[in-house]
Amino acid sequence: MTRNAHTRETCLELDKADPLADFRQSFELSDGLIYLDGNSLGAVSRESKASLIETVERQWQPDLIRSWNTAGWVDWPTVFGDRIGALIGAAPGQTIAADGTSINLFKAVVAALRMQSGRKVIVSSKDNFPSDLYITEGAADLFEGTEMRLLPADAEEVDVIALLDKDVAVLTLTHVNYKTARIWDMKRITNAAHALGVLVIWDLAHSAGAVPVNLDEAGADFAIGCGYKYLNGGPGAPGFIYVAKRHLGVAKNPLTGWLGHASPFAFAESYTPAATIESFICGTPQILSFAAMKGALDIFERTSIAALYKKSQALTDLFVDLVEARCGDAGMVLISPREAGMRGSHISFSHEKAFALIQALIARDVVGDFRAPDVARFGFAPLYNSYVDVWDAVQHLVEVLENEEWKRPEFNTQKKVT
Amino acid sequence: MTRNAHTRETCLELDKADPLADFRQSFELSDGLIYLDGNSLGAVSRESKASLIETVERQWQPDLIRSWNTAGWVDWPTVFGDRIGALIGAAPGQTIAADGTSINLFKAVVAALRMQSGRKVIVSSKDNFPSDLYITEGAADLFEGTEMRLLPADAEEVDVIALLDKDVAVLTLTHVNYKTARIWDMKRITNAAHALGVLVIWDLAHSAGAVPVNLDEAGADFAIGCGYKYLNGGPGAPGFIYVAKRHLGVAKNPLTGWLGHASPFAFAESYTPAATIESFICGTPQILSFAAMKGALDIFERTSIAALYKKSQALTDLFVDLVEARCGDAGMVLISPREAGMRGSHISFSHEKAFALIQALIARDVVGDFRAPDVARFGFAPLYNSYVDVWDAVQHLVEVLENEEWKRPEFNTQKKVT
Repeated sequence: MTRNAHTRETCLELDKADPLADFRQSFELSDGLIYLDGNSLGAVSRESKASLIETVERQWQPDLIRSWNTAGWVDWPTVFGDRIGALIGAAPGQTIAADGTSINLFKAVVAALRMQSGRKVIVSSKDNFPSDLYITEGAADLFEGTEMRLLPADAEEVDVIALLDKDVAVLTLTHVNYKTARIWDMKRITNAAHALGVLVIWDLAHSAGAVPVNLDEAGADFAIGCGYKYLNGGPGAPGFIYVAKRHLGVAKNPLTGWLGHASPFAFAESYTPAATIESFICGTPQILSFAAMKGALDIFERTSIAALYKKSQALTDLFVDLVEARCGDAGMVLISPREAGMRGSHISFSHEKAFALIQALIARDVVGDFRAPDVARFGFAPLYNSYVDVWDAVQHLVEVLENEEWKRPEFNTQKKVT
Repeated sequence: MTRNAHTRETCLELDKADPLADFRQSFELSDGLIYLDGNSLGAVSRESKASLIETVERQWQPDLIRSWNTAGWVDWPTVFGDRIGALIGAAPGQTIAADGTSINLFKAVVAALRMQSGRKVIVSSKDNFPSDLYITEGAADLFEGTEMRLLPADAEEVDVIALLDKDVAVLTLTHVNYKTARIWDMKRITNAAHALGVLVIWDLAHSAGAVPVNLDEAGADFAIGCGYKYLNGGPGAPGFIYVAKRHLGVAKNPLTGWLGHASPFAFAESYTPAATIESFICGTPQILSFAAMKGALDIFERTSIAALYKKSQALTDLFVDLVEARCGDAGMVLISPREAGMRGSHISFSHEKAFALIQALIARDVVGDFRAPDVARFGFAPLYNSYVDVWDAVQHLVEVLENEEWKRPEFNTQKKVT
């Protein structure tokens, strides 16, 4: 089918032929809602709800404290870490689920800085997710004389590599850009960094569960990421951290809580870190948040990242084509890479009135999000978004633009946006 | 009633007269279970379950990302922080709920060390909870030349005060000792520390929700604590951190995640901490874990800490009396303070075979816990434990001791214990 030749009917045909279409049945999405923000907070699955009820009513409630052993709660950080590891190309024993993305980044940055004594520069990018920059800045403040060296926005791999030298301790980048969805070439950058003795931390927040990642194959040192975006683990789900096997026993988690101890239940007086990935656990895992993620991860085991990414590319291609064909004159400018293989599972357009545009769409039950200063962002979760979702979202967008609904005052009031 | 004059019937009478007895109806405790480990993991309440279902089915499910605004999720750390604050004598605006106890301690220790440049000693106690020592040790490692100075176990207030001098940056103690239940005199120690310019961090893990605490009145600098013990917030519930108003804007959270930023949603390039307690938030709150805690906190608003502690003292007095009267010859040695006002809401006895004893009791559905090397620990949660629970627990203990059940091999196999 050529560009622009789509109709609502051809989209329905694509859904009929979609081998992943049945997964939508797992998700509790309201009729009429077109949810294009699964890259910010994934949807509720029946599996998550069932797992949560099981944890509350068949573990916590009857077994209480004993559940740490009987339900295996104490092992959930490693068990779910390995399950997430399988989605990001990490062999077992290198990934744990724990805490949140920002805290895990802190662990990784401090661990990496300590492995690089004498080197005083951290490289990142101005268009990295702000919290990543803040955490990195905060970690750098703990090591006197350490400074940040930031790439300009929209840099290329060659620019990253050009910024590295033997003063650089750590390079930290987000694999899929949270605004543009651009994917960094993980292997190329990691190799170039290693050639100069630089350690690399990859943030997989917008990658895990959506985009092929192969940490082991890329030779990554550290990675961190988020459980509540494409992994659908629920609001504030545990994040994860990967530490390459060769660094285990060397890399030191600064958050030296009891569950990272070599013998956490011996209650020794001083801290001896585990020589395994467990040393990157800190305190008691947030079990109820893990429970929801457990159900969500079960779904991923019935498909593959390759299949999900194939559909993701088809959905995002369709969205770009339809917006450009049908809203071409209305000031929507694509800021995501045009080539599907170069981007993650969301699409961003800039528009002068992006904030109000997104509010007007939300009022029509088409949920995307706004990113300052002028970005309208739409995430496509291949587990539950359909081709007809794409068609209908664009139809609403066409109407919002034609009617100039974004001019209405109620869509121009700034609220807290996440 | 004099000591030793109790019978099961007099205990039933005490329950009938107990003004808090009805709270037990809120908790989902199996028939026949005598749960004396609420100091380790609180029980499930109907309120927690209802709150969890509401958050999943009436917030996350229909409103998805919009719930951050519509359900006020983004404010939960401060809303629930203030609600916990009300239970520990903290005026609003000084407490947030977030992360876990160990991570919050890390924030407090690092913040305090930075306020005390030139001072290089951290004082704590050998019988502090091990994770507190590990975290403190880990934080000290980030500040060159900083060393730990530890009190011996079972020290008195005078010993603490004697250990302080003008080299000491921070004193960190757990208000209620996790083993013995002994309570430190918070005000006396804090005053003595302040006279020498020492900042004090109080761990309220075994205090919050059970024991009167008045942080503001004691002049505390920092406090941290746990949501899943007496607060009944669920396994791995959010912990909390208190920073005295006079330190806000000065004390710096090293975990500089976006939600601690002065303008988290402006997505600025560099970090500017909020001048409020919000600066001690790091990343996205674990909403499902908060949801269960929300229900649990509702229960506390229908009673008072004073009423709860009064019943706690009566339950623990009764337990001590009955054990000593009925198991006096069997090697059970009280290691908790005999005076009720000197201890928290649990009672510990040492016994040569404490581990096996606890296992034998658990096999009879009497759940306490073991703490190395020889401590049998029994927690009494005044919201759901009854006087007849105390009687029945002691009756089982008498039988276990008389039958020497602790000799059985199955009770002598070490497992992971939390």
